[in-house]
Amino acid sequence: MSRIARDGLMSKLKAILFNCSLKPKREKSSTQAMLDKVIRVFEQRDVSCKVIHAVDASIEFGVKTDMGGKDKWPAIHDQVLKADIIVIGTPIWMGQRCSVCQMVIERLDALLNETNDVGQLPLYNKVVGACVVGNEDGAQIVASGILYNLMQLGATIPPNSEAYWVGMAGGKDDFIDVGLSDEYVKELVSYMGNNLVHMAEILRANPIPAVGNVS
Amino acid sequence: MSRIARDGLMSKLKAILFNCSLKPKREKSSTQAMLDKVIRVFEQRDVSCKVIHAVDASIEFGVKTDMGGKDKWPAIHDQVLKADIIVIGTPIWMGQRCSVCQMVIERLDALLNETNDVGQLPLYNKVVGACVVGNEDGAQIVASGILYNLMQLGATIPPNSEAYWVGMAGGKDDFIDVGLSDEYVKELVSYMGNNLVHMAEILRANPIPAVGNVS
Amino acid sequence: MSRIARDGLMSKLKAILFNCSLKPKREKSSTQAMLDKVIRVFEQRDVSCKVIHAVDASIEFGVKTDMGGKDKWPAIHDQVLKADIIVIGTPIWMGQRCSVCQMVIERLDALLNETNDVGQLPLYNKVVGACVVGNEDGAQIVASGILYNLMQLGATIPPNSEAYWVGMAGGKDDFIDVGLSDEYVKELVSYMGNNLVHMAEILRANPIPAVGNVS
Amino acid sequence: MSRIARDGLMSKLKAILFNCSLKPKREKSSTQAMLDKVIRVFEQRDVSCKVIHAVDASIEFGVKTDMGGKDKWPAIHDQVLKADIIVIGTPIWMGQRCSVCQMVIERLDALLNETNDVGQLPLYNKVVGACVVGNEDGAQIVASGILYNLMQLGATIPPNSEAYWVGMAGGKDDFIDVGLSDEYVKELVSYMGNNLVHMAEILRANPIPAVGNVS
Repeated sequence: MSRIARDGLMSKLKAILFNCSLKPKREKSSTQAMLDKVIRVFEQRDVSCKVIHAVDASIEFGVKTDMGGKDKWPAIHDQVLKADIIVIGTPIWMGQRCSVCQMVIERLDALLNETNDVGQLPLYNKVVGACVVGNEDGAQIVASGILYNLMQLGATIPPNSEAYWVGMAGGKDDFIDVGLSDEYVKELVSYMGNNLVHMAEILRANPIPAVGNVS
Repeated sequence: MSRIARDGLMSKLKAILFNCSLKPKREKSSTQAMLDKVIRVFEQRDVSCKVIHAVDASIEFGVKTDMGGKDKWPAIHDQVLKADIIVIGTPIWMGQRCSVCQMVIERLDALLNETNDVGQLPLYNKVVGACVVGNEDGAQIVASGILYNLMQLGATIPPNSEAYWVGMAGGKDDFIDVGLSDEYVKELVSYMGNNLVHMAEILRANPIPAVGNVS
Repeated sequence: MSRIARDGLMSKLKAILFNCSLKPKREKSSTQAMLDKVIRVFEQRDVSCKVIHAVDASIEFGVKTDMGGKDKWPAIHDQVLKADIIVIGTPIWMGQRCSVCQMVIERLDALLNETNDVGQLPLYNKVVGACVVGNEDGAQIVASGILYNLMQLGATIPPNSEAYWVGMAGGKDDFIDVGLSDEYVKELVSYMGNNLVHMAEILRANPIPAVGNVS
Repeated sequence: MSRIARDGLMSKLKAILFNCSLKPKREKSSTQAMLDKVIRVFEQRDVSCKVIHAVDASIEFGVKTDMGGKDKWPAIHDQVLKADIIVIGTPIWMGQRCSVCQMVIERLDALLNETNDVGQLPLYNKVVGACVVGNEDGAQIVASGILYNLMQLGATIPPNSEAYWVGMAGGKDDFIDVGLSDEYVKELVSYMGNNLVHMAEILRANPIPAVGNVS
């Protein structure tokens, strides 16, 4: 149980996790398999978890908080603002974050026009992690870009805040088929999951002062 | 007029250009403004041009040539195979190719399972260029990735095969508002447009032999 | 004055800043000009600052802590371990972190074989920022990569932990000649400098527990 | 034997290959092992090969063709201009091209100030390939960046102009120890080596016209 929950002074930490697979939720997903490992760490530490399966979530292309029409992003936007921990999970396609992941991050881009109640960017005092899976190569550049984008929106990146798996050069296997018991992944998930909780607790108890970082 | 057309021995060169703007075709588009400059070069050299406005084109997320349902990619796939020149135009969002661009490239990924009539990857003897526009920063990493992805599918990248515009750090202006008469863009467009035509002509007359590059 | 210094309970925060310019220290340096702005914030907040001008510092190529011979990295390594705040400053060349910057980060790579006194990677409870200058384009991908590399070694990345300047597409000017009073840079430096101090203070008072992040 | 050599009308094609390992030439090198595979293809096709072991070559940091003092780059610069094929080989460190590779590319940057005898950038009608080796991840972003940089200097990138090897996520093995007989590498090397020769022959017989690409 987290210190914060233990003290009974504050509510449980909340995590929002985006599964940005290109495939609908009903199909098996390596990205989800990686997120599930992180969720297990979160739940052991009494963090409540919400998964958004982005491709099924009626998210429109665009860079505004509300694109109108059938766009369901506004409700997701609100959940992001309530979360303490944000995790973005994506497959790699052609060496890049996938299109659904980029679509989600484009929608987050609108946060640059908002502030929290002390005038900082809205992701201040939230932490971010990246989960990346692919057949071969590209995990680090993808994780790096995701973390960086959310840092620009105000999130803090704790140490080792990534979990990834890729096969060797030319690999064709999927994480869900061959990587689930990988020892390296186990270590990455432990570091990432625990550090996200550690840092979310630290920041809840010690928010970043609104000094020098409000416009 | 291109040498090939002049000789009357072969048909006109064909270019397919993807506008991967997040916005529907009816809205004004910096990406289209850049593509239009390239098209002007192509038309002066008697290349026939076809623009796909991707976000309006009923392209489904996925990595197969035909995702079924309402997916209109299969017809676009056929146009790609008939083209001599492929140009991908994208805005930059959060430092990256936009989601619609990545969606298009994910669909192209299926070409790895196809060959041309001598057994090479299907983009052999085609050439590729990238057009990138943004408010600030990121043009080169975006252009680089696009060109590289299509090279992996068999395309050749001629020298200086990119046209981009971005403002300075922190810039908020759009290319269509402030960049249209930029001298650097003029140079980039000339180099890119002409080299794409030069190399397409060279490769049509001298296709890459199917030696050492078929599996 | 920082809270920690004010309380008199702990020593002043220490920052180590790497100037990775390709040019020797005697020449004027846009990278140094950017670092100087960050140093001004640090000094206002009573952080002691040490600058390493890397190209003049007898650092050998390699990935071990001590490459032997004339290698002076071992002393720098010790200063890194004593610092609370690490800032890497680099020019952009050909769209990339420069060679001297990469040389420095290759030497830091050896930290993966070390731990702090509770068994975590040695940069745990330290914070990292990136300063990047260039004529045109590339700042964000460079900053992103630097921050990510140090996060892998255990550093925490506070929000907005970057200060960069680049001119518009095709720009040929240097930051030191035209960017010194840029308003966007002023904002970036304030956010970065202050958040590095905020987070270093927070982590000194609340170190990341050695739970789930030791091997 | 290449068509050009066979015809006896022109001299043999020339390749220059950079081994950008951090280690001196006397130590065993995965990068060299990959280059050797490419050289084997070149020699089968009667291309003459010259390897520059960059870290041993007295190359100074800088972005001018001649940095003075003990700088030996000017002679290498001349060899680059005489070559038809340029191959850059680099290990991956921290997910990036290594420092020695970036140092080499920074020196090539000065070519932007030169032209060939028809006024084009000096790498026009030359072709470029990338060889990349690492323990895990990062090969494609590294290859992509190298190819792109040389394209900006005027080189043409043939299809599949890369050969790389990396282990799976978290891998610690070296190519030279475990990858030498890898089937995927064999295919990459064949495609890259042969396409570089094909395209160099095509461009020697059909140089890119100086139309629209001179300033």
